[in-house]
Amino acid sequence: MRTTRIDGGVTAPAGFRASGLHCGIKKNGKPDLALIVSDAPSTSAAGLFTTNLAKAAPILVSQQHLADAGGHARAVITNSGCANACTGPQGMADAVEMATLTADALAIAPPQVLVASTGVIGVNLPMPALRSGIPATAASLSDDGGPAAARGIMTTDPFPKEAAVEVATDVGSFRVGGMAKGSGMIEPRMATMLGYLTTDAVVDPSLLHRALTDACRYTFNAITVDGEPSTNDCVFALANGMSGVVIDEGLYPALFEGFRQVAHELAIGIVRGGEGATKLVEVTVTGAATDADAWLAARAIANSPLVKTAVHGGDPNWGRLVAASGRSGAAFVLEHARVRIGPLVLFEGGRPFDERAPQAAEYLKGTTLQIGVDLGAGGTHTATVWTCDLTAEYVKINAEYRT
Amino acid sequence: MRTTRIDGGVTAPAGFRASGLHCGIKKNGKPDLALIVSDAPSTSAAGLFTTNLAKAAPILVSQQHLADAGGHARAVITNSGCANACTGPQGMADAVEMATLTADALAIAPPQVLVASTGVIGVNLPMPALRSGIPATAASLSDDGGPAAARGIMTTDPFPKEAAVEVATDVGSFRVGGMAKGSGMIEPRMATMLGYLTTDAVVDPSLLHRALTDACRYTFNAITVDGEPSTNDCVFALANGMSGVVIDEGLYPALFEGFRQVAHELAIGIVRGGEGATKLVEVTVTGAATDADAWLAARAIANSPLVKTAVHGGDPNWGRLVAASGRSGAAFVLEHARVRIGPLVLFEGGRPFDERAPQAAEYLKGTTLQIGVDLGAGGTHTATVWTCDLTAEYVKINAEYRT
Repeated sequence: MRTTRIDGGVTAPAGFRASGLHCGIKKNGKPDLALIVSDAPSTSAAGLFTTNLAKAAPILVSQQHLADAGGHARAVITNSGCANACTGPQGMADAVEMATLTADALAIAPPQVLVASTGVIGVNLPMPALRSGIPATAASLSDDGGPAAARGIMTTDPFPKEAAVEVATDVGSFRVGGMAKGSGMIEPRMATMLGYLTTDAVVDPSLLHRALTDACRYTFNAITVDGEPSTNDCVFALANGMSGVVIDEGLYPALFEGFRQVAHELAIGIVRGGEGATKLVEVTVTGAATDADAWLAARAIANSPLVKTAVHGGDPNWGRLVAASGRSGAAFVLEHARVRIGPLVLFEGGRPFDERAPQAAEYLKGTTLQIGVDLGAGGTHTATVWTCDLTAEYVKINAEYRT
Repeated sequence: MRTTRIDGGVTAPAGFRASGLHCGIKKNGKPDLALIVSDAPSTSAAGLFTTNLAKAAPILVSQQHLADAGGHARAVITNSGCANACTGPQGMADAVEMATLTADALAIAPPQVLVASTGVIGVNLPMPALRSGIPATAASLSDDGGPAAARGIMTTDPFPKEAAVEVATDVGSFRVGGMAKGSGMIEPRMATMLGYLTTDAVVDPSLLHRALTDACRYTFNAITVDGEPSTNDCVFALANGMSGVVIDEGLYPALFEGFRQVAHELAIGIVRGGEGATKLVEVTVTGAATDADAWLAARAIANSPLVKTAVHGGDPNWGRLVAASGRSGAAFVLEHARVRIGPLVLFEGGRPFDERAPQAAEYLKGTTLQIGVDLGAGGTHTATVWTCDLTAEYVKINAEYRT
């Protein structure tokens, strides 16, 4: 098995078309609608959804459709500029209508359509815009519509996020493509994450769900900008089988790796484009007593405002890494712990190596950084989480929404 | 029982003296050493300590001394400017020497001395400064030394925090005094960064520990600045019996209330003086299914960077309050939830009341704010947590702390 990074996004695999356009939800004329369609009559689908209990209407509709269609779907319709969250019965009716409008335009059954929305919470969708926009976006579907779709799902993202790989196996090659959005700069109420993976491999729904879950664990679920899971987060995967490569247990690692690589690139893009972010930080925890402990500590470090501000200031403040690890809830043994900033060990065997601080400060001037903490808890479990620095710009973006 | 707020701090109760001075730990000449002493040979003592597993040396020494002396202590020595945390065996030796130097200066046994440190992690104490400073601070003890001590424990605090009350009961009056420091790395889980309560009531060690625990639950343990419990958090209580009022089960509520009021005032002071803070926010969660859920949701809201930046910007962004509640881990029912900013309900019965947003924005211009979220989970449990806004100044302070 060999993977090769290729150009493109969701339309890189065979048999996927996409489109994106402005239908009138956003007042600034930017794209606010995106459609992905599989040409194969039977396309497997899987979805992972926000754990936030305040789930938006499109989340509930997509979950229902996936259940109704037994893990199959041929289209995903997404609007940006309005999250359709906390919008009551009208919001549910609007999400259902978005699916129906899409199904009608594509001449497929409504449960074959998944729905996503991202934008301001608590505002109803302007349905007249969608009633004209959805047929128009269906009419403009094309094999090279990936970039347009990637722009259609953006809110405050500073740049679109697409990725694709080709996976060569002994029985042939298949492709995996994807796109995602994160949170950016203008309407921070939306702070939502949406991810889409497509593949032309032949994958049954249960294996697709497993691959999506496994890949997300190390990618979309391993990033943080501000520790705030939104009401609308979701990731979809569609597999249309066009490559003829059948994924069975033996080929499962190839599918996983294809998904993981595309999702990794998209997830890193979300962090790099995080609100106010100037640095990407990879936090790796080792020496954890359990897998859960490794994740607990890595997330505690990655979400620590004191760590994130120290990174922003270029301060090799290993004490904050020790403090965040110690309070994380994970087993932590100070005398056996080790803290590493880039290649420099700054604390080990219960004592600091402050003579290395100037080198570490120099390292922290970079924009792609690695931090390692060994919990010294006697185990071999590890976890890696990606985060960004916390800047005055983040505060400005999120404080000045109405001004 | 009647409580009256009175002037002063730790020396307000009879038989307590205190002092504070600059001994040379801080390079800027500001006070860096503080001493509290009880004149009574037998003084009950209790302590609550950080749950952070990276415990600083003074925490370990104070825990040991409280155990050795069976819940008694006559003095608390505190330095600021250096946390003596992550300092290995030398750090332990230095913390023990701080206690011994204090005991020698006061002619008492070392286990009668509790030790606390606050400041930069990972740096050893400059012991020559303490060897001359501790006898000097002992020599300057006085009945009105409370304010000097309150300044001696400050780090980045913008103002000293002192409080005192007089509690009148049927069998006589006693007093409770206190001081505290805070600012950054504040989300005390078992104690505050540093807090000190004194009383001239007669209280045995076990009842004193209970009163300290109960009072902290609603005060020091219910505040957050940045969700970061530190390596050095601790709260001490000393009871010297000088008032002659004996606290038994019947009078326990009077002791609790005295402790609670003083600790509340100090805790609120810590939040108001939080790093970069411009607003104090009281977050009250109601309608929780369990007590644990109420605290989970209140802490999630109070630590949410999106909520804290919205408050800073004066944006009545109720969607962020719903999102933080929904992801908190607490049971949350969107259709029955209610969000209140000051006196204004902005979301209820599944629908927003955006026409009230301008009034809510006006309310948020204040500096002392209330936010209420009813989880709609069918229970009657509640929790109140105090937090502050997240500002560009917080980022600046913590990005430049050591530079």
